[in-house]
Amino acid sequence: MPILVMKFGGTSVATLDRIRRAAKRVGREVANGYDVIVIVSAMAGETNKLVELVEETSHLYDAREYDAVVSSGEAVTAGLMALTLQEMDVPARSWQGWQVPLVTNSAHASARIEEIGTQHITAKFAEGMKVAVVAGFQGISPEGRITTLGRGGSDTTAVAFAAAFAAERCDIYTDVDGVYTTDPRVCDKARKLDRIAFEEMLELASLGAKVLQTRSVELAMKYKVRLRVLSSFEEQTDEAGTLVCDEEDVMEANAVAGVAYSKEEAKVTLVSVADRPGVSAAIFGPLAEAGVNVDMIVQNISEEGRTDMTFSCPVGQVARAAMAMNAAKDRGEINFHGLIADNEVAKVSIVGIGMRSHAGVAAKMFKALSDENINIKVITTSEIKISVLIERKYMELAVQALHDAFELHKAG
Amino acid sequence: MPILVMKFGGTSVATLDRIRRAAKRVGREVANGYDVIVIVSAMAGETNKLVELVEETSHLYDAREYDAVVSSGEAVTAGLMALTLQEMDVPARSWQGWQVPLVTNSAHASARIEEIGTQHITAKFAEGMKVAVVAGFQGISPEGRITTLGRGGSDTTAVAFAAAFAAERCDIYTDVDGVYTTDPRVCDKARKLDRIAFEEMLELASLGAKVLQTRSVELAMKYKVRLRVLSSFEEQTDEAGTLVCDEEDVMEANAVAGVAYSKEEAKVTLVSVADRPGVSAAIFGPLAEAGVNVDMIVQNISEEGRTDMTFSCPVGQVARAAMAMNAAKDRGEINFHGLIADNEVAKVSIVGIGMRSHAGVAAKMFKALSDENINIKVITTSEIKISVLIERKYMELAVQALHDAFELHKAG
Repeated sequence: MPILVMKFGGTSVATLDRIRRAAKRVGREVANGYDVIVIVSAMAGETNKLVELVEETSHLYDAREYDAVVSSGEAVTAGLMALTLQEMDVPARSWQGWQVPLVTNSAHASARIEEIGTQHITAKFAEGMKVAVVAGFQGISPEGRITTLGRGGSDTTAVAFAAAFAAERCDIYTDVDGVYTTDPRVCDKARKLDRIAFEEMLELASLGAKVLQTRSVELAMKYKVRLRVLSSFEEQTDEAGTLVCDEEDVMEANAVAGVAYSKEEAKVTLVSVADRPGVSAAIFGPLAEAGVNVDMIVQNISEEGRTDMTFSCPVGQVARAAMAMNAAKDRGEINFHGLIADNEVAKVSIVGIGMRSHAGVAAKMFKALSDENINIKVITTSEIKISVLIERKYMELAVQALHDAFELHKAG
Repeated sequence: MPILVMKFGGTSVATLDRIRRAAKRVGREVANGYDVIVIVSAMAGETNKLVELVEETSHLYDAREYDAVVSSGEAVTAGLMALTLQEMDVPARSWQGWQVPLVTNSAHASARIEEIGTQHITAKFAEGMKVAVVAGFQGISPEGRITTLGRGGSDTTAVAFAAAFAAERCDIYTDVDGVYTTDPRVCDKARKLDRIAFEEMLELASLGAKVLQTRSVELAMKYKVRLRVLSSFEEQTDEAGTLVCDEEDVMEANAVAGVAYSKEEAKVTLVSVADRPGVSAAIFGPLAEAGVNVDMIVQNISEEGRTDMTFSCPVGQVARAAMAMNAAKDRGEINFHGLIADNEVAKVSIVGIGMRSHAGVAAKMFKALSDENINIKVITTSEIKISVLIERKYMELAVQALHDAFELHKAG
């Protein structure tokens, strides 16, 4: 039998009614001839409740105990889903991560999957079981302790199972009906994409489109898992949702697939840094040690032997960044005249594998922003992405202008 | 290091505050020089919530999935208790049943403990860990699935750990401060016992005193585990609570240790049963098959070749009993003239190992009841117990009269 992986997120299993609705979808795929592996999250709100209990108990908590506590929500949903399927006469049983086993490394609270044992579930399929319900987000460490994969880890669980079992497809059921050209709340012309390439999805995911967790997309790309994102709240046809797939399978020819944005950005400039070989390492080493997630980096030569160094990071990390820089200055590792932080910026990006073959994409982007009198503060580019830092108050305007300029409301 | 087992029930870990209070008690025992194994229940209300979810999902549910779901409450408490102890600088970690492992048979939802692996926890104690926090009520089947031990299973878990680790004592922290001569709500002269013999506790537990689960007492008796019942809501001295121990260690010389009662009893009489060899089997076989818990049995010869057969069972099972009897009559397996059910009865019992050596205990009991004009409907006796069935409205009066007659308000 071909195998299908179906993943249901927290809102899709938030009540017994919704679990029943999800189970019906699973039943339909069984009727279609699939052996199904269902990955479930905890019922919406449950994991947060457990995290709060842990945090209220202990500030610097032992991540191993944190994992033991917060993994319990998924175990509950898995059992309830198996029971619901059995009620519908679909042969099903539940597995917790350690029972599969889904083996991870020992990085508790953000563990990485190392191996999925397929033997046990495969044997049950051979005996006539039709659905294996697996608790998402959790695994077992080499020491035999429960681990969790970090936020959104159930997406990663689903993709990893699809890879391990060579599933025909991995369907991610969520509360949106697919991947959009941009956030519909910001731009009402946003259009659902039928298909998107792994690389594009990866850029969009890491730029803040919250449909899929970045790691799950990376994993899908690596193992060529066809990933479909679709809504658990609408009746589905075969062409529903968005298929995340290989570049070759994306039919659309638009140069740009989508516009992403991120609000909580800050721009930090070290003014007049004494320039010498190794100065970049002297700056970004201490920032990394201080846990500052540096995103964009720009260096301008301002005068002979001195340079302005600008970088962006999340707003909440500016104070930490300033502290690290001043400490490095005090230790004599770097020398600069001043530090300027601008907390009122946002990042807007266009993403598309078509950029590779389309000339003039950057020029078109800058013109669209300039036509709206939006000043660009920092630019970075990758092969399939162009990001700009702008004043935050222009963010929505910029997204709409770019969506129009690249005609994303039209299918390519 | 000597090992102590401490068990905290649901009300003793109902909130983070109460978990902290329980953890403080554990910390004191660590300071006293013990390595401690803590057995925890789910936070009060959690297990019921999970059971409701399962029952709402499925009427004839798969007990294996039921176990997977309802066992999660204990896992949460175990992790939180370990974190709380760590916050107090007490080296601790949590174990779930399958991690220990606590191996049970495969009778899901009411599994029996078969073996407790001591190696893993013992090794951790040797490394300097002071407290092993174990999720009560749960184990793992030979098939690798999670099992639960049935209601009150955490008491049994605690006693089994005390036996497996040869613990010095097993302290059961609960919401009452010990075992009483009778229910203080029924008799205000009820006195807390300092000590009680296993056999007596067993009779009291099976007669409805809800302090300890019957199986846990059986297990403690079998493995000579010194069991102490005490309140988690009061400051404790060394002599607090009630010690359940070997007969030889019970100092008190009262013939009777306590008075127990059970309200939900019914008396069923099969009138004029045709008597022949094997008639008892013909009656009680079908009752057992119908799931009727027959308690007391009395047979009177009423006339030549016929007999009246009387038995007691829980009120809720009378209809089922009548159905089973009429069906057996229809099948020609038994013959009787009528079936009379009396739903307005209660059982009152006196229990005490002293009965063995004290003559006249039964006579004293019957006189005390007769002095109050209480009519005895059925009597049964065992070596250390005498039970009578009486009209339910006299129950409280009977308990008080017996408590007085045997002077249970005085220590023996």
